[in-house]
Amino acid sequence: MKNETTARQTETGHGNNNLSAILDAKSIAIVGASDDPAKIAGRPLAYMLARGYTGKIHAVNPARQFVQGQASYSSLSAIGQPIDLAIIGTAAERVEAIVLEGIAIGVKAFVIFSSGFAEMGEQGRAMQERLQALACIHDVAIVGPNSLGVANSRNGLIASFTTALENTPILQGSFSFASQSGALGAYWLDIALRSGLGFSQWITTGNECNVDIAQALHHLVDDAHTRVIGLYIEDIRRPLEFRKALERAAAAGKPVIAIKSGRSAAGQIAAASHTGALAGNDTLYDACLTQFGAIRVDSLTEMMDMARLLTQGATPAGRRLGIMSVSGGAGVLIADASEPLNLSLPAPSDATKKALREILPPFVHPANPLDITGNVLQDTSLISRTMDILTKANEVDAIVLFIGMMHSIADVFTQTLTKAKQTVQCPIIVIWVGAMEESIQQLEAHGIPVFLDIPQAIQAISRSIQASEQRNRMAAQTSLDTHRLAPALPANTLSEWDGKQLLHTQDAIMLPRAILVTDTEPDARPTPPGFPAVAKLQSTQLLHKSDAGGVILPLHDSQAVNDATQALFQKGSALGIAVQGVLVEEMIPFDHELLLGLQRHPRFGPVLSLARGGVEAELDPDVVTRLLPLDENDIVMMLESLRSSALLRGFRGGPSVDISAIAQRIAFFCEWFLSQELAEVEINPLAVKGDRLWALDALITTGTLQK
Amino acid sequence: MKNETTARQTETGHGNNNLSAILDAKSIAIVGASDDPAKIAGRPLAYMLARGYTGKIHAVNPARQFVQGQASYSSLSAIGQPIDLAIIGTAAERVEAIVLEGIAIGVKAFVIFSSGFAEMGEQGRAMQERLQALACIHDVAIVGPNSLGVANSRNGLIASFTTALENTPILQGSFSFASQSGALGAYWLDIALRSGLGFSQWITTGNECNVDIAQALHHLVDDAHTRVIGLYIEDIRRPLEFRKALERAAAAGKPVIAIKSGRSAAGQIAAASHTGALAGNDTLYDACLTQFGAIRVDSLTEMMDMARLLTQGATPAGRRLGIMSVSGGAGVLIADASEPLNLSLPAPSDATKKALREILPPFVHPANPLDITGNVLQDTSLISRTMDILTKANEVDAIVLFIGMMHSIADVFTQTLTKAKQTVQCPIIVIWVGAMEESIQQLEAHGIPVFLDIPQAIQAISRSIQASEQRNRMAAQTSLDTHRLAPALPANTLSEWDGKQLLHTQDAIMLPRAILVTDTEPDARPTPPGFPAVAKLQSTQLLHKSDAGGVILPLHDSQAVNDATQALFQKGSALGIAVQGVLVEEMIPFDHELLLGLQRHPRFGPVLSLARGGVEAELDPDVVTRLLPLDENDIVMMLESLRSSALLRGFRGGPSVDISAIAQRIAFFCEWFLSQELAEVEINPLAVKGDRLWALDALITTGTLQK
Repeated sequence: MKNETTARQTETGHGNNNLSAILDAKSIAIVGASDDPAKIAGRPLAYMLARGYTGKIHAVNPARQFVQGQASYSSLSAIGQPIDLAIIGTAAERVEAIVLEGIAIGVKAFVIFSSGFAEMGEQGRAMQERLQALACIHDVAIVGPNSLGVANSRNGLIASFTTALENTPILQGSFSFASQSGALGAYWLDIALRSGLGFSQWITTGNECNVDIAQALHHLVDDAHTRVIGLYIEDIRRPLEFRKALERAAAAGKPVIAIKSGRSAAGQIAAASHTGALAGNDTLYDACLTQFGAIRVDSLTEMMDMARLLTQGATPAGRRLGIMSVSGGAGVLIADASEPLNLSLPAPSDATKKALREILPPFVHPANPLDITGNVLQDTSLISRTMDILTKANEVDAIVLFIGMMHSIADVFTQTLTKAKQTVQCPIIVIWVGAMEESIQQLEAHGIPVFLDIPQAIQAISRSIQASEQRNRMAAQTSLDTHRLAPALPANTLSEWDGKQLLHTQDAIMLPRAILVTDTEPDARPTPPGFPAVAKLQSTQLLHKSDAGGVILPLHDSQAVNDATQALFQKGSALGIAVQGVLVEEMIPFDHELLLGLQRHPRFGPVLSLARGGVEAELDPDVVTRLLPLDENDIVMMLESLRSSALLRGFRGGPSVDISAIAQRIAFFCEWFLSQELAEVEINPLAVKGDRLWALDALITTGTLQK
Repeated sequence: MKNETTARQTETGHGNNNLSAILDAKSIAIVGASDDPAKIAGRPLAYMLARGYTGKIHAVNPARQFVQGQASYSSLSAIGQPIDLAIIGTAAERVEAIVLEGIAIGVKAFVIFSSGFAEMGEQGRAMQERLQALACIHDVAIVGPNSLGVANSRNGLIASFTTALENTPILQGSFSFASQSGALGAYWLDIALRSGLGFSQWITTGNECNVDIAQALHHLVDDAHTRVIGLYIEDIRRPLEFRKALERAAAAGKPVIAIKSGRSAAGQIAAASHTGALAGNDTLYDACLTQFGAIRVDSLTEMMDMARLLTQGATPAGRRLGIMSVSGGAGVLIADASEPLNLSLPAPSDATKKALREILPPFVHPANPLDITGNVLQDTSLISRTMDILTKANEVDAIVLFIGMMHSIADVFTQTLTKAKQTVQCPIIVIWVGAMEESIQQLEAHGIPVFLDIPQAIQAISRSIQASEQRNRMAAQTSLDTHRLAPALPANTLSEWDGKQLLHTQDAIMLPRAILVTDTEPDARPTPPGFPAVAKLQSTQLLHKSDAGGVILPLHDSQAVNDATQALFQKGSALGIAVQGVLVEEMIPFDHELLLGLQRHPRFGPVLSLARGGVEAELDPDVVTRLLPLDENDIVMMLESLRSSALLRGFRGGPSVDISAIAQRIAFFCEWFLSQELAEVEINPLAVKGDRLWALDALITTGTLQK
């Protein structure tokens, strides 16, 4: 037992394969099964009977001999056959005993619908913690409590009471979903089934006493039938494990589309009211998702649009779109939508123009967008020949075809397109305003995604490319070594002087020459290291020195330094704080001012923020945040993604910096940070000149690493 | 005839009532009518016969005795009855003769489908200009040529060959559309009919030889059945007339929703390729639309979402939303969507909380969003009682109710809502994920708009409020006096010295004391007006002086001024330009730097741009543009909408300015500009200190007003 407990505490998390035990279960017991197929405890049985679950189902209900026509057992033990999965929908108070009974007869997995646990106060939280301990000690998987359950379209396993399955048949597909909200999970399932997308696996994690969203993601990466993964996230409990799962999804070529709620301050307040937990710093969630190749969307509608493209494998290999449109106006609107998303509509080369002129009527001007007019559309051979010309020249990465209505010739047209798809080498994406449902399904059955309007199509294309570029970058990097990425709890904050002494143990960022004056007598003071100089009062009780008048500058001679030192010691006395001394430091001339923040976040682990410094940045913050580890190239990308990055490149005759060199220095500094037991380092300003960096001020907090 | 021609040139435009002559026509002739109901010249007849057009239709086809079962005439003249409207779908070459024949027998209006006019080169353009002249001389209305036509749902008039009417019955509604693209017009009609929205009037303007988009908008403002107006715009030929039409729409309480294509540079290139015309400066179109209360959207999907809200009259009176949601997660997503759009979710007052606690189950926490849970939803009386409490307290301006699926209890639920709607005093807006079509139609029949997901609902709500706020501001202003707003063609650009002499005729903006040194001999120079000073080379051949080294500063004494003047005269000789002299000016200390641009745009008329000045603004432009006339309040709003407006209010201890005073000065300056014959005034920098403004540099171009 001891060994199992230890194994559960490794970083790969508790029982990553246990979700397979649930979703591939070959025998299921439903505890408290109801004869009424409309009741919560009646629905799973009714759903599985109606949809032909391929395993065995056993109803447990001591009050009845039969439940929905199935023999009913008085207890789990009474079944007398091996049970892979027990579904529990009883009152909260009875759940623990049922789980214990199940464990005793060898049940390896549980799905718990029952509410009344951590979401309902202290007593419920205690019950939930006991379930968590049971799962941990006995190495069983528990989904829930307070979960809407799980479903697997392949074997007809429906351990759920969702009303989304009331009237809609199961439809197999390659899209899977894991949700921290039962309601959003149900809506997803409803849309996936009714839109013809279908699904492979569906998991709602409920209160996550055991199986959490990271584990669900790991499981979906392993599911052979899943090509695209959707997530609805309120809170990631194990960010490092979640990162690993995203990394595995990227390596497996499975795009992840995520909704993370609580993006806004108002949303975070609403989330606190809803779940009692703080949704937390959205910047870190956003960094985590985008940095590890996931596509963040804001709604189920956007998620389904993304899935349309991704389940078809229609992500373009690059950003060049070839537009064919039956309407000139629509072509203009497509160009309008593409430009802000950095998609290009390259003009055809002379050779391509010539080839197009040879086949198209004289009134068609060979351009991009190509206005093919309604006439061309009716000569279906022209469609595929035009596409062949555009793609064989390798001047575009995808064909986007815009049409509208055409209800009377929809069949001929879909046949033309599905035939063209066989020879065209790049994705064909159709925007069909007013498309009929059957046309959409015909095209999508042949790998051609169909959108109903322009913005949603162009946004999905752009997002798919961006995530794919990020996954390609990830593939070039070494895998996460999470040992170095432990979170930390803050311990003590150092004075600037002490912090800078610590910074002397690295050499990526330079430090101005400085002395610490500790004696208030002028005669006892050492000579300042250089002029002009700055004098700064040192006290761990005065961390924001400037605002409190604890900084005097510029000082041009010894007398000025002495006066300033004297004044600062008096300031310290007046404030009644414990003074370490006065730091006297030479002032360094520099060209640009950045802010560098490194934090070992208590949950996300090490995080780097780079920001523009100075008043201008306070007026309109310009900051980029990424999770470590980061190499020099990553940091170049961070610097270039600052809105003010043109300043660093030498704007309007201003001084430029060696971006590659300073990125390398920052990368070295991050490595140094990872080797330290620190919670936080903030260097503000970080002075930049040429290829060099200076820490003009530093605020360092030591930390206790949470290994 | 003469008087009529003069009338046509008044500013209300040519024949604003003539579209009524078309859309309310009681007798129609179809010239070239085809017996084949699928052909372009056969469709209008087939459509009107099938849909019971209430007037008389006459087919004109000399080759046949009957067309689609109707008696056919050999020519317009042969009909021998009064004809209100002639529809012409013949070859382009025959159109002019038919129009002349129609005019001769008293036809007052024509819809011309025929293509082959201005869109096809010079010869076509000449034919179109002759049509334009005919319309003008004989005071008849012409829609087209190259138009998809018009339709009126009230009398079944379908002067169109759009395939959108092939299979879909006409549905009357309160939404109308005018489009510069036939294709977009057809898609709009298809969606309006199939979504259950319906329409009142539908106009595609084609090549606009006579009836243009401004006139179409005027007409829809006058149509009693139109409550909401949609526009698709590629190019506004008469911006001043269009502004007037928007102003009339606002005064009539009819919201206008507009798609304007060519927003991006890529889109403008595509538009040039499509129509041969430059889409023009999008900033001015955007200013024109938003400033006159229109709602700009990017797609038909967004337009239809807006129309859902507006045709129901469900625009909230303010920005406070009360959210009721069956899903806590969805409540968080609604908060996330609301915050960036400046919609607030105010927490309920203590009294409201108390009232909610009294009726709701104990597990419902009285907050906003209010998580009503699925249980509450099933007790339908609770829904309306909760809504009553929320609205009677006057703490919210609209109720947004989020639900999902509920297919089995949809009927009960829609009944509850439609009943609640009778007592609830503010708009009820429903977001229903997975709603069935019949539920949507039931609710919308009772004034409750239904959206299928969160972002589209919240965006529509935000846009409706913003436009309504703008229309309220317009109502407080006096109507346009377009005489003062004539466009201008640029004439001569003045030197800074000459420009500043002109600026001395106003006193809203101050000018630094200055002299013009014209003599190169040092002895002949007058004393500089003050120190420090700046010396600037004056030449109409050197308008960007700084970049060319034509400015020297700061000059602290007379010797420095003499040296600088000497150097600048030499510079002028070296550049080989005609030098007017050297402007020597005192330097004014100031706190903030703006850029002020006034232009009499050749089409939009007078335009004011205000921007942040200096290098920072070049790095990341911060500019706001509005069409004149503008009063002090408008200019305060412009200044406050600059991203850098916090600087003017005194950021981080920096100096503040008297925004109201400088806005008043700028308003006075605009008045002065309107009194001048100028094409452009650019003051950069416009120095600001306290309540005062200085023109430190000025670039003025005279103009010829186009009255």
